[in-house]
Amino acid sequence: MKVRAGIVGGAGYTGGEMLRLLVNHPSVEIAFVNSSSNAGNMVSDVHTDLLGDTELRFTSDLPDDIDVLFLCVGHGDAKKFLDANKIADGIKIIDLSQDFRLKANAGDEWVYGLPELNRERIKKANYIANPGCFATCIQLALLPLAAKGLLDAEVHINATTGSTGAGQSLGATSHFSWRNNNLSVYKAFGHQHLNEIGESLKQLSPAFDKALNFIPQRGDFTRGILAAIYLDSDLTEEEAQQLYEDYYAEHPFTHVSKKNIDLKQVVNTNKGLVHVEKHDGKLFIVSIIDNLLKGASGQAVQNMNLIFGLPESEGLRLKAQAF
Amino acid sequence: MKVRAGIVGGAGYTGGEMLRLLVNHPSVEIAFVNSSSNAGNMVSDVHTDLLGDTELRFTSDLPDDIDVLFLCVGHGDAKKFLDANKIADGIKIIDLSQDFRLKANAGDEWVYGLPELNRERIKKANYIANPGCFATCIQLALLPLAAKGLLDAEVHINATTGSTGAGQSLGATSHFSWRNNNLSVYKAFGHQHLNEIGESLKQLSPAFDKALNFIPQRGDFTRGILAAIYLDSDLTEEEAQQLYEDYYAEHPFTHVSKKNIDLKQVVNTNKGLVHVEKHDGKLFIVSIIDNLLKGASGQAVQNMNLIFGLPESEGLRLKAQAF
Amino acid sequence: MKVRAGIVGGAGYTGGEMLRLLVNHPSVEIAFVNSSSNAGNMVSDVHTDLLGDTELRFTSDLPDDIDVLFLCVGHGDAKKFLDANKIADGIKIIDLSQDFRLKANAGDEWVYGLPELNRERIKKANYIANPGCFATCIQLALLPLAAKGLLDAEVHINATTGSTGAGQSLGATSHFSWRNNNLSVYKAFGHQHLNEIGESLKQLSPAFDKALNFIPQRGDFTRGILAAIYLDSDLTEEEAQQLYEDYYAEHPFTHVSKKNIDLKQVVNTNKGLVHVEKHDGKLFIVSIIDNLLKGASGQAVQNMNLIFGLPESEGLRLKAQAF
Amino acid sequence: MKVRAGIVGGAGYTGGEMLRLLVNHPSVEIAFVNSSSNAGNMVSDVHTDLLGDTELRFTSDLPDDIDVLFLCVGHGDAKKFLDANKIADGIKIIDLSQDFRLKANAGDEWVYGLPELNRERIKKANYIANPGCFATCIQLALLPLAAKGLLDAEVHINATTGSTGAGQSLGATSHFSWRNNNLSVYKAFGHQHLNEIGESLKQLSPAFDKALNFIPQRGDFTRGILAAIYLDSDLTEEEAQQLYEDYYAEHPFTHVSKKNIDLKQVVNTNKGLVHVEKHDGKLFIVSIIDNLLKGASGQAVQNMNLIFGLPESEGLRLKAQAF
Repeated sequence: MKVRAGIVGGAGYTGGEMLRLLVNHPSVEIAFVNSSSNAGNMVSDVHTDLLGDTELRFTSDLPDDIDVLFLCVGHGDAKKFLDANKIADGIKIIDLSQDFRLKANAGDEWVYGLPELNRERIKKANYIANPGCFATCIQLALLPLAAKGLLDAEVHINATTGSTGAGQSLGATSHFSWRNNNLSVYKAFGHQHLNEIGESLKQLSPAFDKALNFIPQRGDFTRGILAAIYLDSDLTEEEAQQLYEDYYAEHPFTHVSKKNIDLKQVVNTNKGLVHVEKHDGKLFIVSIIDNLLKGASGQAVQNMNLIFGLPESEGLRLKAQAF
Repeated sequence: MKVRAGIVGGAGYTGGEMLRLLVNHPSVEIAFVNSSSNAGNMVSDVHTDLLGDTELRFTSDLPDDIDVLFLCVGHGDAKKFLDANKIADGIKIIDLSQDFRLKANAGDEWVYGLPELNRERIKKANYIANPGCFATCIQLALLPLAAKGLLDAEVHINATTGSTGAGQSLGATSHFSWRNNNLSVYKAFGHQHLNEIGESLKQLSPAFDKALNFIPQRGDFTRGILAAIYLDSDLTEEEAQQLYEDYYAEHPFTHVSKKNIDLKQVVNTNKGLVHVEKHDGKLFIVSIIDNLLKGASGQAVQNMNLIFGLPESEGLRLKAQAF
Repeated sequence: MKVRAGIVGGAGYTGGEMLRLLVNHPSVEIAFVNSSSNAGNMVSDVHTDLLGDTELRFTSDLPDDIDVLFLCVGHGDAKKFLDANKIADGIKIIDLSQDFRLKANAGDEWVYGLPELNRERIKKANYIANPGCFATCIQLALLPLAAKGLLDAEVHINATTGSTGAGQSLGATSHFSWRNNNLSVYKAFGHQHLNEIGESLKQLSPAFDKALNFIPQRGDFTRGILAAIYLDSDLTEEEAQQLYEDYYAEHPFTHVSKKNIDLKQVVNTNKGLVHVEKHDGKLFIVSIIDNLLKGASGQAVQNMNLIFGLPESEGLRLKAQAF
Repeated sequence: MKVRAGIVGGAGYTGGEMLRLLVNHPSVEIAFVNSSSNAGNMVSDVHTDLLGDTELRFTSDLPDDIDVLFLCVGHGDAKKFLDANKIADGIKIIDLSQDFRLKANAGDEWVYGLPELNRERIKKANYIANPGCFATCIQLALLPLAAKGLLDAEVHINATTGSTGAGQSLGATSHFSWRNNNLSVYKAFGHQHLNEIGESLKQLSPAFDKALNFIPQRGDFTRGILAAIYLDSDLTEEEAQQLYEDYYAEHPFTHVSKKNIDLKQVVNTNKGLVHVEKHDGKLFIVSIIDNLLKGASGQAVQNMNLIFGLPESEGLRLKAQAF
């Protein structure tokens, strides 16, 4: 018996990635792909790389003979959708927007879907708030410290994201002529993902009250986030590395690299890689993910696997782009 | 006494390049930059690389105390502008759109502004129709043959353009996430520049009646056009090379390279480079330009220099990007 | 019972892709990865994206308890390897070099491993000469015509390849500072893949004796080949499209797109997409593949699947990069 | 009377940029370009974008009828060159390597050639140690604070450089297939430019003893450095902006942007742009330069202009690449 999945917002970037993953997932059947703007069109006319992989068409219907519903709509629209549409009891919901990530917005029904933080709770959840891309990358770098109460200093974070992080809407900073060979900073010290990161760190380390100084950057690549992070720490490099290896030992997608890492090691995969170094009193951590996979749709499928008791990495052993 | 220049449509790509060239042109004074959408704004707020170079603001006015008017508006809009605005006698007009390139649209008042074809006529012209970017690149590869009546076979052209060739309007094919690392064909056999190329070739070689098979491609770079062209020919490689060298001997921007060429040799310059090889019965020509300079604004300044009796390359000895 | 595979030359680009495919192939076990220069090193220290996917180490040994041997060494080195090493009878060999592609070099023992041309012969083959990347892309555009004897005119081919096509050796044209935002032509009319293309076309259409005019280009992307091809033809667009659809109907990786195509539709997949248009008397075909997958290692795995009676697409339903 | 310039190491990246600048400099004559490996070759055969701009050939000679000698050789090789070759008295030397930047290596004869720090000393100097690229970019962000004694906190620096910063030597991290669409950190907390930055800051602010935490990154673009820097500060945003504007008021290439900045505003120019913001107690500064121009050869020409009493920006009003 396959898990029957519905997708709302299937014409966007995360919806497309969801389709690319689920068409090859051995335990999933795509029940429908809802897109109001594309109802009736072939999925492969919008996500043209899927030509030959699926004969699905977008629909404006919302059949309820499904096991799980993925919400791949914009921030704010997930809440509106759920306010406007009654989803039958028993259907699991995995929302990729930010609408239900913070406790203040979500209450106890929603579980923050970062398996490296909440795996056991995810398995029992009905509703999953899938983490943000920057938030995932940065948390993977900090969770092992927070879990041991060793996060007791101001944290300095510079992280660069690919263009797909901004979605498919057209704008000045997504124009090829502007972005190619370019680099820029935006939302310095004010990125919205700081809130969800803060809640996770306090979950593990309730006393944590230090600043998270976060400089996001727009890179001239399409996929991926690289975060360079440091903080004062008493750990030695060996202790830190062991701490990270222990923390991630049972997590199939997050690995500690003894060697320095570069972004393309994870592009087009669901992996997170972290690398730690010690320089004088500073612990330095590099963390990389693919923003659309481990930072969005891949993690959503990972959460689905956990909820339905499937192997955590099923359908997610992806060939890296590598080049 | 400096040449006083006005620019209409100064907020677009070719308008911006015109400004980048004219702020450093020793014999030109920018009288005004007209942009209805940006009237009152600093030029350096739109073309932000000009910060520190100019304190100019866009205006909605059209003062007539100028010597030359550059029209940097969209195709169709130049004709509309001239229909709606009476330009005082004695003001030279250089139009970068396609509106007056073809004889059927322009009559005898307009000279097609390709110095390598029409230098003497340009010097005496009042109105210049500045050539298209693909058209410039392809003509530089074919003019020497046409001038000697040696263009007597079907011509095969594949040319790839940078993203700035499509202007600054946002669209699916200008989105960074789509265009980066991508390549595609468009308007195969039907590109509008074929008409102006055809007229130029017939000007030099009235009997020319062979097909110009032209496949345009969208490249994943911002600036430049590379055209790869071949045709049946009886010339030897040495004869062809000599023919091209002779034809361009007195032209300061177009050079014949004995070695194979690559696009970045001309990017951010006003140059055209051509390279010829012979393979069995085929004469093979590679031609490269920067689409915004030799293919648009640089050539417009070159035409202005010719009209006003300035050195042809004044203000146009540009440092190549090289990397 | 899994197919036991050995890889020779595992440290290069095609060897790396072979590993990325085989670590996730459900019916294959990697018996060994031979690399003289890296013997003893972790595979994931060389192909760093494989961290977490495999604990394999390179070896200098050549155990013979295998079912299939993939040769991922340079051109010329495959022949040398087989001259120097006796491979036990019964072991299938799939060679990714060009050493055995031409009949003159290979004799009858070797089958040219293009499933869209030779599927039935491949199933029974002991030795496979895996096609070249350009050769695959161009043949996919021409086979349906050749099969019907409709290839009776000079063929015009312009094809642009990504940087991985040149392998991992360092050189002036593989330097990032040179290649980024650049484009160039090389080996015009003289690319070595013309020979294998010619042999395939004659296999289907023995009378074919027209020129294949081929201009290869170096693109500023890492993966993929786009070929733009045309020839005189009496077929209508509808007839041509039907011809191609019929020819590829039973081939799981090659599809005919009614809409125009762009390179990234196939990047990081084993697919080939073709699109046909008719313009006056010219039939115009665009063909795209990923040079390292359908153009090399992916096709090698496809051939292995055919030889061992596995589903042709097993282990090859890859998530496209898409962006 | 033109300044006669000799160049040693003319075949490398900074030597090439020097040539691109000097061929168009109205007050300079290139006396010779020395390159042992290329002696006798045309300069335009190595720097192929210079075709049509110069007929110069490389030489292995070192004529001494020059006014200024630019050393464009590798780190360590400048010192060796000067040890091995007696340069006639009266010839000014501008060294682009790091060999004479630190007081410990240079003694008092050498002036650190950052005009925004040492303009008056440069005018009188015989020997100039041209600053490093990262060092220039970072100092432009910090000098105004240091000059007022307002640099009294730990400084956090993340800066990303283009590939040309690593020179033209081939290596794994300069391979296009690796670097394209990639990002990585290197030499965290240990980059050699920290030393020259430290000396400059102490020159202005002798009591400065705080840490400079510097994370360098390799970007997937060819030209430019963007540094994102912050520190605790009591200044308001307005005060800081005024401080920077006052400091750079008389410097022709360094400007303060009220709006956020992006790298391509300065690429292919000799400019430095800085932008300041205040976020809670943190002063945040973004600084951008072209690493080969303001970060190397452009600054060398600027220093030459100052030494010979030429207008500081002569030959350096460069058209930005912009796209």
